[in-house]
Amino acid sequence: MLYLIGLGLGDATDITVKGLEAVRSCSRVYLEAYTSILTVGKEALEEYYGKELVLADRDLVEQGADEILKDADVTDVAFLVVGDPFGATTHSDLVLRAVNAGIPYKVIHNASIMNAVGCCGLQLYNFGETVSVVFWTETWKPESFYDKISKNRAAGLHTLCLLDIKVKEQSIENMMRGRKIYEPPRFMTVSQAADQLMQIIHRRREEGEELGMTEDTVCVGVARLGSDHQKICTGSLRQLVSCDLGGPLHSLVVTGQLHPLEVDMLRVNAEPDALEHLQMIDSSTYTS
Amino acid sequence: MLYLIGLGLGDATDITVKGLEAVRSCSRVYLEAYTSILTVGKEALEEYYGKELVLADRDLVEQGADEILKDADVTDVAFLVVGDPFGATTHSDLVLRAVNAGIPYKVIHNASIMNAVGCCGLQLYNFGETVSVVFWTETWKPESFYDKISKNRAAGLHTLCLLDIKVKEQSIENMMRGRKIYEPPRFMTVSQAADQLMQIIHRRREEGEELGMTEDTVCVGVARLGSDHQKICTGSLRQLVSCDLGGPLHSLVVTGQLHPLEVDMLRVNAEPDALEHLQMIDSSTYTS
Repeated sequence: MLYLIGLGLGDATDITVKGLEAVRSCSRVYLEAYTSILTVGKEALEEYYGKELVLADRDLVEQGADEILKDADVTDVAFLVVGDPFGATTHSDLVLRAVNAGIPYKVIHNASIMNAVGCCGLQLYNFGETVSVVFWTETWKPESFYDKISKNRAAGLHTLCLLDIKVKEQSIENMMRGRKIYEPPRFMTVSQAADQLMQIIHRRREEGEELGMTEDTVCVGVARLGSDHQKICTGSLRQLVSCDLGGPLHSLVVTGQLHPLEVDMLRVNAEPDALEHLQMIDSSTYTS
Repeated sequence: MLYLIGLGLGDATDITVKGLEAVRSCSRVYLEAYTSILTVGKEALEEYYGKELVLADRDLVEQGADEILKDADVTDVAFLVVGDPFGATTHSDLVLRAVNAGIPYKVIHNASIMNAVGCCGLQLYNFGETVSVVFWTETWKPESFYDKISKNRAAGLHTLCLLDIKVKEQSIENMMRGRKIYEPPRFMTVSQAADQLMQIIHRRREEGEELGMTEDTVCVGVARLGSDHQKICTGSLRQLVSCDLGGPLHSLVVTGQLHPLEVDMLRVNAEPDALEHLQMIDSSTYTS
């Protein structure tokens, strides 16, 4: 059996009881380690589970799937994923390989940022399409996430922005020379994401475009959600540019239309004056 | 401390280790029991947790919040929610009352249908706004969910349809006479939801409206997701009208545009001919 097990978002004890029992019964346990990170490290997990973990980086998952699935028809193998196995990313390819090889698989779900973000006070069913915000380079500054946010906002919907993670990336030079030397991991902060959004807004305003959001749009920055050290900060986009929410992982939410109960919940973690630019659409709807 | 603890979607062992430790340390434990149901009952949870649970129905949560929060500043109280505390519904009101009373609160997240639905093979970040499908009556047949689905599909996005639950509902007669007699619980099936959608499609076609989805649109029915008895069935809307996925809870997904990897994943649980009406938009995009 191939078990795909979600680890949730916090520390080692955020695994489900069912997941922990499965981990302890498996003969091999892989830890997927390139689409997200847990706030505790591999060693802490190994100690808590009482099991050795094999780090599964992108190369192993994409090219070494046969190794992961080896003998999984006669023994139990676990593949651990931070959050939920089908959360922010999918491991469809591994599942399809298992299915094609006649290996049964079982998913043990857990919280992911996709649902845990509801704790900021915004109702999950009022979210539109999720977007990814990637690190800009000197020559590559995609803006498609801004357009998706604008589309969601036009429909009154909130947008969860997943922020870029660079783990085990090679510099272009090292890649060209075939040197397996990797850059230190990088994680986009709420502040960096807000700054990229501000740049897009400035550029488009100069071009005379009608704006889908502005510097005053109310946003929510979240960091290390689900852990004991989580931080939630609600402010205007302008305010979030200068917020410091500490270590990874960060996500950003851009609000759409707000119900008064959502406004009350946002107030719990709001910067001073953060909600003062809200406009009333009708007695049960606000926007910024 | 007020703990809001997600129970996940399956049986008693789907609680997280952190959640279980918190439950066992609390002096009072409430089980929210009107927005969802676990596939095991209250007694199974009590036995597994070694704790007595107080069923919190809608009346208690909405009118008896003071009772729930009593002494929570000096003792620990747990409020258990199937799925995630901020999943398909929110308990913002309880949280706000705690905040206003100066009672600290902590959320222990878990899987909800909002993220676990990813196991059907559709990518979570390609979902648009979530909709609720309510039971129609003789005189009340709202169609707003159809319009939201159409809007999502026009944007290429999938739609998660949460299906109606009626727990502890009074008949109109009993309500008018002030008799606290409740109807047996009812849970909308995938088949019932598909049937209501078909009726809307027929009616709108007769009116000459351009349709946002048809009988051939590929949908996914899911039942008891996350439990050992989960069922996933992919078929055209027409096929799902006659599917029988067994006991509650059910949800329905209406697909938007599909990536080839999503199509491959859907095939794992597909009815014969379910995917034969797919049209290729380009080499990496299909729709139905």
